[in-house]
Amino acid sequence: MKFGSYFLEEITPYESMLRRMDEILAKRTTKFQELTLFRSEGFGKVLILDKDAQSTERDEHVYHDTLVHPALLAHPEPTSVFIVGGGEGATLREVLKHPSVERAVMVDIDDELIDIAKELLPEWHQGAFEDPRSDVYAEDARAWLEQHDEQFDVILVDLTDPVGEDSPARFLFTVEWYSLLKKRLKPGGFVAMQAGMLLLTHHREHPVIHRTVREVFEHVRTYRTYIPGYFLQFGFILASDHTDPLTIDTATYQTRLDERRLKLRYLNAPLITAQFALPNDLIEAIEAETMVSTDAEPFWLDEEGNPHQKPLG
Amino acid sequence: MKFGSYFLEEITPYESMLRRMDEILAKRTTKFQELTLFRSEGFGKVLILDKDAQSTERDEHVYHDTLVHPALLAHPEPTSVFIVGGGEGATLREVLKHPSVERAVMVDIDDELIDIAKELLPEWHQGAFEDPRSDVYAEDARAWLEQHDEQFDVILVDLTDPVGEDSPARFLFTVEWYSLLKKRLKPGGFVAMQAGMLLLTHHREHPVIHRTVREVFEHVRTYRTYIPGYFLQFGFILASDHTDPLTIDTATYQTRLDERRLKLRYLNAPLITAQFALPNDLIEAIEAETMVSTDAEPFWLDEEGNPHQKPLG
Amino acid sequence: MKFGSYFLEEITPYESMLRRMDEILAKRTTKFQELTLFRSEGFGKVLILDKDAQSTERDEHVYHDTLVHPALLAHPEPTSVFIVGGGEGATLREVLKHPSVERAVMVDIDDELIDIAKELLPEWHQGAFEDPRSDVYAEDARAWLEQHDEQFDVILVDLTDPVGEDSPARFLFTVEWYSLLKKRLKPGGFVAMQAGMLLLTHHREHPVIHRTVREVFEHVRTYRTYIPGYFLQFGFILASDHTDPLTIDTATYQTRLDERRLKLRYLNAPLITAQFALPNDLIEAIEAETMVSTDAEPFWLDEEGNPHQKPLG
Amino acid sequence: MKFGSYFLEEITPYESMLRRMDEILAKRTTKFQELTLFRSEGFGKVLILDKDAQSTERDEHVYHDTLVHPALLAHPEPTSVFIVGGGEGATLREVLKHPSVERAVMVDIDDELIDIAKELLPEWHQGAFEDPRSDVYAEDARAWLEQHDEQFDVILVDLTDPVGEDSPARFLFTVEWYSLLKKRLKPGGFVAMQAGMLLLTHHREHPVIHRTVREVFEHVRTYRTYIPGYFLQFGFILASDHTDPLTIDTATYQTRLDERRLKLRYLNAPLITAQFALPNDLIEAIEAETMVSTDAEPFWLDEEGNPHQKPLG
Repeated sequence: MKFGSYFLEEITPYESMLRRMDEILAKRTTKFQELTLFRSEGFGKVLILDKDAQSTERDEHVYHDTLVHPALLAHPEPTSVFIVGGGEGATLREVLKHPSVERAVMVDIDDELIDIAKELLPEWHQGAFEDPRSDVYAEDARAWLEQHDEQFDVILVDLTDPVGEDSPARFLFTVEWYSLLKKRLKPGGFVAMQAGMLLLTHHREHPVIHRTVREVFEHVRTYRTYIPGYFLQFGFILASDHTDPLTIDTATYQTRLDERRLKLRYLNAPLITAQFALPNDLIEAIEAETMVSTDAEPFWLDEEGNPHQKPLG
Repeated sequence: MKFGSYFLEEITPYESMLRRMDEILAKRTTKFQELTLFRSEGFGKVLILDKDAQSTERDEHVYHDTLVHPALLAHPEPTSVFIVGGGEGATLREVLKHPSVERAVMVDIDDELIDIAKELLPEWHQGAFEDPRSDVYAEDARAWLEQHDEQFDVILVDLTDPVGEDSPARFLFTVEWYSLLKKRLKPGGFVAMQAGMLLLTHHREHPVIHRTVREVFEHVRTYRTYIPGYFLQFGFILASDHTDPLTIDTATYQTRLDERRLKLRYLNAPLITAQFALPNDLIEAIEAETMVSTDAEPFWLDEEGNPHQKPLG
Repeated sequence: MKFGSYFLEEITPYESMLRRMDEILAKRTTKFQELTLFRSEGFGKVLILDKDAQSTERDEHVYHDTLVHPALLAHPEPTSVFIVGGGEGATLREVLKHPSVERAVMVDIDDELIDIAKELLPEWHQGAFEDPRSDVYAEDARAWLEQHDEQFDVILVDLTDPVGEDSPARFLFTVEWYSLLKKRLKPGGFVAMQAGMLLLTHHREHPVIHRTVREVFEHVRTYRTYIPGYFLQFGFILASDHTDPLTIDTATYQTRLDERRLKLRYLNAPLITAQFALPNDLIEAIEAETMVSTDAEPFWLDEEGNPHQKPLG
Repeated sequence: MKFGSYFLEEITPYESMLRRMDEILAKRTTKFQELTLFRSEGFGKVLILDKDAQSTERDEHVYHDTLVHPALLAHPEPTSVFIVGGGEGATLREVLKHPSVERAVMVDIDDELIDIAKELLPEWHQGAFEDPRSDVYAEDARAWLEQHDEQFDVILVDLTDPVGEDSPARFLFTVEWYSLLKKRLKPGGFVAMQAGMLLLTHHREHPVIHRTVREVFEHVRTYRTYIPGYFLQFGFILASDHTDPLTIDTATYQTRLDERRLKLRYLNAPLITAQFALPNDLIEAIEAETMVSTDAEPFWLDEEGNPHQKPLG
C-alpha cells in the first residue's frame, strides 16, 4: 500500500476499506449529505455520499441495470415510471431507454445533489434530466405521492438504508409507505427497490424489508447482484399484485429486450432470471423473519446491521 | 474504526482492507507460505495465507459448495475424485458427502499446512482427513499426476493465482497441465476449478484461463459466485469432453441432490443453474481473449491483475 | 506499507498510527484495562494499555530516566520514595539505582497488571519487585496515602491522562490530591510527575496541570522530552516547597551522578538542565492558563485534548 | 477513526500515519517532486512533498526557528546568507528578520516549487521572495556555488535526506560538498543544516552526517528539536572553523536577540543552549560512527534508515 491519499470507508463495523484517490474532483456539502467525488485507478470516478461509496463510473451500470430493467421488462408496456431518490440521474437514464416510456417522474429530496449531479456527473445522467419525458422534483417523495394521485406502471425505489434510530429514511421502509406505493401503481404495475446488503445471509436487513413488503403486495421476490464498487452483494425486491416475477420466463425477457432494442452492458435475459435464484441460507433467513416495519414502529439498523423497532435504550 | 489489532490486506492494488482481529489464534510459517489465523467478529475464524484471506469459518461453505458440487452433481455417479491443493480439508469434506464416492485423492504441496489444518482448522476438515476413502499426499500435484496413470471421475483444482513472473503456480495454468488433467479423467469425467476474481469484467485473468482450458476441453463453461469473506466475486470453470454443463437442467441437479440426500447450506439446484448465467460484459471479455498459456510461455499476473506471458523487464 | 498485522492507535483525533506487529505476544484483560503486547521491528516489545502505546522495550529508558532521575538527583539524599502507578516496574527499577534509597513504596490500582508485568515484562522490571527495599501494593494510591501518614523524600506520579468526563483518574489531578502529596513529603522533598503531551504548545492539558500544581507548591517547573515510541513530546513537572529546581545547576547534578555511580542510558547532567528550557509558545500557554482542577470540579479532557471542568451537557 | 479522506505516510518502514484531510487544497507535480497541500484540523495547512510531510502551517516555526536562528545568532553580525534548498520561503523569511542581513541568496533546484510556494504558501514565505535583499535562483545549488566565488557569513542547508542508492541528493552530503561550503564562507562564518531524524539514537543517519562534516570543519556540534508535524525528533548541525558553538553562552544569545529586536515564536536564548545538550545514547552513537561520505563513495539510506556507501546488489 503506497503513500498517498485514501478514502476510509467502513464496509462493516469490523472491516474498513482504504480506497486510493488519484485525484479529488469535488467535495461539497448539501443540506442532507456530504459528497466526495474522486478519481480511482480501478473504478474511474467514485461518488461518496456521507460515509459510503454510492456509485462508481466503471460499475454503476451493474447497479442501475439491476434496479431498473427487471421491473420495466416484467411490464409488457411501461408508459409511466416513478423514481424515488436516484439523484445522480442514472436510474432515470436507464428508464428512458425503454421506448414505451412517455413520462418519468423523479423525486429526490436533495435539490443540491441534483444540481451537483448535473454539473459533475455527466457519465451518470448523460442528459437524462433534459429529456422532455423527464419531470424532476426536489421534494420529499412520500409527501409528493401523498399529494398527487397520479398512477404509474412502474415505481423504482432507490434509497439508502435506515441506519440509526433517528434516520428519516425509516418512514420509507414501512407497511404504510409500501401501501402508498401500491395505491400509486396502475393495474398490472410493478415496484422494484434496492433492499439491503447481503454480506452474510443471516443478516436481517433484507429479510425485514422483504417481510414488510409482503404485508402489502401479493407477489414479492428477492433478487441479487454483486456490486464491484461496493465490494458487497446487494438484495433487490420486485413486487406486484398482478404477476409473480418468477412466472416470467427467460424467453419473455428476451423478446422484450429485442422488441425494445435494448443493448445493456450488464444484464441479459438469462441473467435476469438467474438473479432470482437464491442460496439456501438466504431463503431460510427470509422465511424465518417476523419483523414488520410500520409507521408506529419503523425499523432501523444499528452499526452492526441488526434491525430494531424501538430506541436502543 | 476503533483502535486495536487489524490485518491489512491489499484487495486490489488500489483498495486495501483493514480487518479487525479480535484474537490472533496462530501465526505459522511453512516452507511455502505464511499462515495467520485470527478470530473476527463478522466472519469467525479467518485464515490468511501469505497476503490474502483464504477462507473464513462463516462463509467457507459458499466457496466450497461452489467448487465441489456443480462438478459432482454434473456427473451421474462419481466414484473417484482427485483434488489439486485444498490443504485445509473442506474441499475433501464436501466431496465425501456424495455417497457414490469410493476414493478421494488429495495432493497439496504443503505438508506443514495439512498438519496445521488438522490441528487448528477442525471447522474446515471436520475429520475428512481420517475418512477411510481419503488418500492425502503432500507432493507437487503435477508430478503426482505425471507419475500415476490412475483416472478419476472428477478432478477439482483448488489453487491460488499465478501472481508474479516467478510464481511456481504458473505451470498449473497451462495447456499442457490441462491436457494432463484430461488424460487422468475417466470417460464422462469433469474438471472444476477456481478460476480467478471477477472484480471488473475487463480484467483478463479469468478470460485467459477460460481461453486456455478451451484449447484442451470440448465443453468449457464459466460460472461464478460472490465470496463474502473475500469481498469479491470469483469465476469458476466446469469443463468436460463429454457433456456441455449448460445442457444439464435444474431438474437433473434436483434429482441428484435428492437421490444423494445432500443438504447444502448454500447451493441448490436452481442456484447451480443460475451460477452459469453471465453478464454481457464478461461474455464479451471471454470471447475477446486470445492469450493461451503454455509451458513454453506460461502466463502470470502483475500486481494490477494484468496477464503477461514474458518477463516484464 | 506491507500486508500483515497492525495495531491502530489514534495518536490524535486526526492522526492515527498503524504499527506493524511482527508477533503478538499476549493479549490480556484486567479489571481496569486491556493489555496488548507485541513485537515490533523498530521498538522491540511494545506494550499497549487500552488504546495507547505505553512503553516500548527500546525506548522505555527515555521515559523512565526522565520521570525518575531529575527528582532523585534534585534531592541531596533520597532515602524513601513513593510511586503512584508505574505498574510495569521500570519506575521502581530506576528508583532503586540510587544507593541512598532504603524504601520504595509503589501503589498501582491494577493487581493483575502487576502480575502480568512480573511474567511478561522482565525487560521493564528487571527483578525490581523482588528487591527487599520494594513494597508494592495493589490499591488505589489516593486511598493508600490518605490512610498512611508515612512521609517520603520523593513522590513520583506515573499516571495516564484523565480522558473522558467519567475518568476515575480525574481525582488524581486536583488541588486536593496535590495537597495530599505535599503532606506526605518530608521537608525538602520533591514531587515529579508525567504531565501530558505537548503536541502543539497551545494545547491546554499540560498548562492546566501546571496551573493546578502551582496552587499547592511553592516551586513548580515544567520539563520535557520526546518519547520516540509515542512519536510525541511529553511534559513533566518537578515541584517542591523547598527548592526551585531551576536553582540546581548542572554541576550539582553531575556531582550527584558521580557520587551515586549512576550510568544512565539517556540522561546526563547537562541534559537534565536542558530539559527545563521551554519554548516561547509553551511558556506563554502556561502563563495564560487559568483553569484550576479541584475535587469539586475536577478537569478532564475531551477527545481533542481540550480541558473541561463540567460535563459537556 | 472516522470515515473520510486521509493521507497515508510511512513515518518509518514499520509505522505509518493516516492524517485526516479536511480539504485538499492542491495537488501538483513538478519535474522533481509531487506536492500535496491539504488542510488538517490539528496542523492547519499541511505540505507534503512526495511521500513525506514537509511542513505544516501551525508548527513550521519550530523547524525554521531551529534551522536559522542558532547560526545567525552565533554570528556577531551576519550580513550575507546563502540558503541551499528551502523552496517554500520560510527559511528566507526568518533570515531576513536579522537586521544586519544585506543579502540573502537562495538556490533551490525546483523552480516550479518556488512558483507554487509564491501562489499557495503565503503563510510560509510571507513576501520574503519580494524583499529587495533576496536573490533567488532555481538551479542546482552545488553547481551555483562552484560557479560563483562569492562568500557568505552564514550558509543554511535545508535539504531532504539521501534515500535510495540513486538519490541525486547523495552529492550534497559528502566531504567535497562540505569543503565547497567552507570555501564559500567568510572568515568567522557558520554553516547550519538539517541533519536527519533521531528516532532511536542508534540510527546512523545523523552520526554519518556528523562524522562527515567533522572531516571538514574544526567545530561541529549537533543540536536537536522535536517537530510536532513530523511526529519525529530531528538532528541539526552547526559547524564553523572559527568558534565552537558550545562556547557561545546563553547571555550572548540573549544580548543578540535583544539587539536585533527578534521576537521568535519558538526559540529563546536558554532553549538554544539547551538544544545542544544531547542524550548519552546519541553521544555514543556519534562517537562510534566511522563512515565518511565522499563523492567517490557517497552514502545513501535504505528504507530502514541504514546508511550504505555502495549499491546494495
